[in-house]
Amino acid sequence: MRLTTGWQSVDGSTALQRVAIERRELRDDDIAVRIDYCGVCHSDLHRIRGVFRDEGALVPGHEFTGTVAAVGAAVTTFAPGDRVAVGTIVDSCGDCPMCQVGQENFCYAGATSTYGGTDRVDGTTTQGGYSREYVLRERFAYRLPGGLDPAAAAPLMCAGITVWEPMRAAGVGPGTRVAVAGLGGLGHLAVKFAAALGAEVTVLSRTPDKAADARRLGATGLLLTTDDKQTEQARGRFDLILDTISAPHDIPPLLRMAALDGTLSLLGYPGEIPLRVMDLIYGRKKLTSSGTGGRAGTAEMLLFCAEHGITADIELLPSARVQEALARLDRGDVRYRFVLDLADLDQPAS
Amino acid sequence: MRLTTGWQSVDGSTALQRVAIERRELRDDDIAVRIDYCGVCHSDLHRIRGVFRDEGALVPGHEFTGTVAAVGAAVTTFAPGDRVAVGTIVDSCGDCPMCQVGQENFCYAGATSTYGGTDRVDGTTTQGGYSREYVLRERFAYRLPGGLDPAAAAPLMCAGITVWEPMRAAGVGPGTRVAVAGLGGLGHLAVKFAAALGAEVTVLSRTPDKAADARRLGATGLLLTTDDKQTEQARGRFDLILDTISAPHDIPPLLRMAALDGTLSLLGYPGEIPLRVMDLIYGRKKLTSSGTGGRAGTAEMLLFCAEHGITADIELLPSARVQEALARLDRGDVRYRFVLDLADLDQPAS
Repeated sequence: MRLTTGWQSVDGSTALQRVAIERRELRDDDIAVRIDYCGVCHSDLHRIRGVFRDEGALVPGHEFTGTVAAVGAAVTTFAPGDRVAVGTIVDSCGDCPMCQVGQENFCYAGATSTYGGTDRVDGTTTQGGYSREYVLRERFAYRLPGGLDPAAAAPLMCAGITVWEPMRAAGVGPGTRVAVAGLGGLGHLAVKFAAALGAEVTVLSRTPDKAADARRLGATGLLLTTDDKQTEQARGRFDLILDTISAPHDIPPLLRMAALDGTLSLLGYPGEIPLRVMDLIYGRKKLTSSGTGGRAGTAEMLLFCAEHGITADIELLPSARVQEALARLDRGDVRYRFVLDLADLDQPAS
Repeated sequence: MRLTTGWQSVDGSTALQRVAIERRELRDDDIAVRIDYCGVCHSDLHRIRGVFRDEGALVPGHEFTGTVAAVGAAVTTFAPGDRVAVGTIVDSCGDCPMCQVGQENFCYAGATSTYGGTDRVDGTTTQGGYSREYVLRERFAYRLPGGLDPAAAAPLMCAGITVWEPMRAAGVGPGTRVAVAGLGGLGHLAVKFAAALGAEVTVLSRTPDKAADARRLGATGLLLTTDDKQTEQARGRFDLILDTISAPHDIPPLLRMAALDGTLSLLGYPGEIPLRVMDLIYGRKKLTSSGTGGRAGTAEMLLFCAEHGITADIELLPSARVQEALARLDRGDVRYRFVLDLADLDQPAS
């Protein structure tokens, strides 16, 4: 076993504890990654709290960057010292129709989650990136392009890919009218991507205080969803609405702003919603969703980011302040993503 | 006023009464149509029963064919004797973005329904095609192509266009894998259209008794949705699923059969459904709907039908047997659309 250190939650508490973590000895196709930076995702909060299922002790973290520390005997893609990025999944069946087309995130047999998942070989529970080292199959690590700041690039691996894939699936490009509801971790990257793809981007928000940020990120403006006049004028305006709001909220007002044959993609809230079919009929609106990404899309996104100089706007904290990051994230007090610097785990616990 | 005769329901009863009906004198852009054939649509049943709202006395019927009997002073498109077809809407605002692109069915100001609607000029309630004559703006009548049997063509105007538009919006063509759930009035036309467009068509049904019909209509086969093995094998198989089932039913099993980025279009049931976003996430499934069609799509469909010799499979009844038609439709005993022959209204009531 390889020993490392990380931050663990127990029984739904966001007061994470510093613990020793065992990583497996490298299999032939494994690499060990020294984690430098790990983003703090809203789903980490959901998972810690057991919103989806009781997970007991959990080491969160599924968007991180680092440096290859060691490689297994059969590894060909990476060498020690390479800069890499890792996202929300670390394995998949490799055989099903989804894996065959590079959408391992939708693997029929269930992709292996970066944390709280079950390793396909030894059956152990995976422990995430709020730690100093991670061991995974090389297939699920990505070369981090030079020029991308590794701290600010970490959130690309979940927040980024989650908005990238639905945008690509919808064919966003010059002339596409894109709206982004919710300007947080996902939303601010959605604005950057859509603008870089040539789309006309509008931010939908309940408050005007992010209007200047919206423009700086690449949007043409911010539409105030609490202003009936503005929403009515926007009826049928957007070809694609990326809804990144993580709390339950009304869907019909967003559908109303979708264009004829337009799409509303729900990316922030994976719960159950009541849906009136009538809200889809008029204008043949499409309701869809998406979750993270596969190997093909992730590799494509990283190249796009390198080409366009896109990373997340982050607030970097020493990992010992993870509890503060979670608390502030919980109340929406972040512009736009917390990233933990794991270097402090090299020091003895204080 | 022009006097004619028709079949009217009162207070939710399907025991329609033969009544005298007043049609307006022709406005300049009106035509009068002697109705020869009118299809019986499942939504007629819904409307008679007041499923959506209390409508009181109602003359149903919104898919009919007939002959132009008279034209207004400014009419240029039609002359007396022309064969025409009329569908579910008879007017719209003409100015909104939907009308501008030929989707008058989604008119922001509300299209005028062929029955139970409110005339935009005189404010009277429209009375439908279960009658011997109808008066409408020429814009909303369509030339019935020669070669199409006028009785069997009547259902094209609602059942047909309702499945045609979503198929065109989804780009159905050679290679597209289309599934049709429910082989009734809409479903059997969906199979014919999809096959004629070059798609590979599968009928989804709870019983095998329509398997031979499915093949005759152009499907490659029938998938038994009660057979778990068959549905599991069909996971992720269809690019487009047209769900024409008019009763409430489970949506997740259908979504599961949709392909990556595939679409499930709900065409039969406009109520409220519970939706788990998770059922959309895996495979980025799109859920949509559609209702009837606009002028552009309707004209296109009629030309396509003429070119490919497509009409509905119908059971023709004298209009006096409308109650029998509604009762049998209600229990699903129809292959595949009842059409009323209105000629019997020329005879004195028996």
